[in-house]
Amino acid sequence: MNSNRTTRSWRLRRRPDGIINENDLELVTEEIPEITEGQILAKTIYFSLDPTNRIWMSDIDQYMEPVEIGDIMRAGGSLAIVEDSKVSHIKVGDIVQGGMHGGWQEHFIIPGEEAIAIPKEESIPLTALISVLGFTGPTAYFGFLDIGKPKKGETVVVSAAAGAVGSIVCQLAKIKGCRVVAITGNDNKCEWLKNDLKVDEVINYKKEQILDSLREKCPEGIDIYFENVGGETLDAALTLMNNYGRIPVCGLISMYNDWDAPGPKMFRNILMKRLKVEGFLVSDYLDRYSESLEALSKWMVEGKIQYKVDIVEGIENAPSAVNKLFTGENTGKLVIKVSDEP
Amino acid sequence: MNSNRTTRSWRLRRRPDGIINENDLELVTEEIPEITEGQILAKTIYFSLDPTNRIWMSDIDQYMEPVEIGDIMRAGGSLAIVEDSKVSHIKVGDIVQGGMHGGWQEHFIIPGEEAIAIPKEESIPLTALISVLGFTGPTAYFGFLDIGKPKKGETVVVSAAAGAVGSIVCQLAKIKGCRVVAITGNDNKCEWLKNDLKVDEVINYKKEQILDSLREKCPEGIDIYFENVGGETLDAALTLMNNYGRIPVCGLISMYNDWDAPGPKMFRNILMKRLKVEGFLVSDYLDRYSESLEALSKWMVEGKIQYKVDIVEGIENAPSAVNKLFTGENTGKLVIKVSDEP
Repeated sequence: MNSNRTTRSWRLRRRPDGIINENDLELVTEEIPEITEGQILAKTIYFSLDPTNRIWMSDIDQYMEPVEIGDIMRAGGSLAIVEDSKVSHIKVGDIVQGGMHGGWQEHFIIPGEEAIAIPKEESIPLTALISVLGFTGPTAYFGFLDIGKPKKGETVVVSAAAGAVGSIVCQLAKIKGCRVVAITGNDNKCEWLKNDLKVDEVINYKKEQILDSLREKCPEGIDIYFENVGGETLDAALTLMNNYGRIPVCGLISMYNDWDAPGPKMFRNILMKRLKVEGFLVSDYLDRYSESLEALSKWMVEGKIQYKVDIVEGIENAPSAVNKLFTGENTGKLVIKVSDEP
Repeated sequence: MNSNRTTRSWRLRRRPDGIINENDLELVTEEIPEITEGQILAKTIYFSLDPTNRIWMSDIDQYMEPVEIGDIMRAGGSLAIVEDSKVSHIKVGDIVQGGMHGGWQEHFIIPGEEAIAIPKEESIPLTALISVLGFTGPTAYFGFLDIGKPKKGETVVVSAAAGAVGSIVCQLAKIKGCRVVAITGNDNKCEWLKNDLKVDEVINYKKEQILDSLREKCPEGIDIYFENVGGETLDAALTLMNNYGRIPVCGLISMYNDWDAPGPKMFRNILMKRLKVEGFLVSDYLDRYSESLEALSKWMVEGKIQYKVDIVEGIENAPSAVNKLFTGENTGKLVIKVSDEP
């Protein structure tokens, strides 16, 4: 039924040098292949844009294979509607997760055995399923709770605090009775963090000297620094960490456009303060995924966790939109809307 | 009984700039104070020289108070013989640990309640008590076993491998069935590590390009990097770490003479490889000290752990001797011998 129908995909044309240039990718129009027995054809509704996309575009040694030149750009999550199905358990009109098959593309094929239809619960919007109940909530959950090991009354500093993961970490820290100092890059985000997410202190790192502000706003030092950015912010946090502090390393976005950026000068405080610094990926916690979704859903129902989704319409805008993550223009989870929700 | 008798001590005169200059300290001759009821007077036999001495001489934010200008230089351990006692449980001629009272000095006073006479066991030489059974063995024990969590067959890289702690770590790693790659700075130490301590591979970092050599000698990557040095070696190790690798941070000696040295460029691999990097001090494990001493003693008796003590005679040589730690001239535990063993 798909013959002569076309679909568009962003393919990686060359590896970016610094910030992503639109010409680093190419929006190609191709014919939708016919599906065969045991497959489904899905049409993307949303796909996720994440800082890690920039890692995948590079060929540095990384946590999974980079996207190869010429390949369709990988997405860290997508939701799609089934347009055609040759498996019995999935019907046309079902909503499915793209998993490793969905990318920066309008259509994709999933082997039936990997496709799971999402139960239709009117109470959970699709935008939640691609954000807080997709990967970003569980990322915050495992990084902050498992590695951060928060104790009531501790001081928690969150960088990229208005981002998809950071904003959930801020709220988890409040749930755990911590004092939260949120670092972000503009005044609107500061307002949101302070007024809606109820963090204790905010720092606009574009206006303030980060070390001075952190020192002022963390008079008792830092017990947990949730790391999303690297660079100067990491150095400032390292400077002020308390003995036995924890640093879950979730991201290092300030380095993604410059792999030669210098490392943290204050590395020595890992020794001096006996810190625990630990990198993690949500994919390391797949066996405990449902635990995180259950807890997050409960807190959402109780009004203790809010989330924001920043929706950019149109697949053609993906390369420019992804750069918003690096300039700090987005708030909350950034997604591309490819087609309308059913 | 001590009136008119004098004693010599090294006092900190100014904070070193870079490598320690003899004039940064001053060897002063002072009168030995009379002890009062409840005190003992001890004469130093050995005191320990450690890389961390250089940290204490600086005024950077560190894990304990720096040595104040004008104060007697602190030692990370000393053994002394009791010359006078006004407490009932300690007799003249007993051997005691200096603890926080002994320093770079010939005599010192200990409050009786803090003095513990060391049981006289002919089988344990005093040089063992100031090295492997002093602080360095337990440091290796807790850092490598508790933070490193070695598994049989894993590849362990040890920097400053012929040093007091490193040489014990190498042997603990062999005991645990690991493949050990030892990094040191001269061929004699390479020979000792290879022939006597039975490590699998050695690297002379002064002759070899560290990243290339490590890559060649760790064909299956690095699971545990026991960190004593920082700098280029840390960066090379970070580059080659396997997923879920562990880096116990015991020391960063290459930075101690240059606090402005750049941080590790490959910090990003903490994220990419989900590493655990953790600083520690042996003093964090005081409640489990006896566990480590028991295990180490057993392995020593079984011939599985050897140690070397590099004895420099004469208190007057302490400032020049401590620099041997930074140039790599010592092998094993470096101590100053102040007076003869009884």
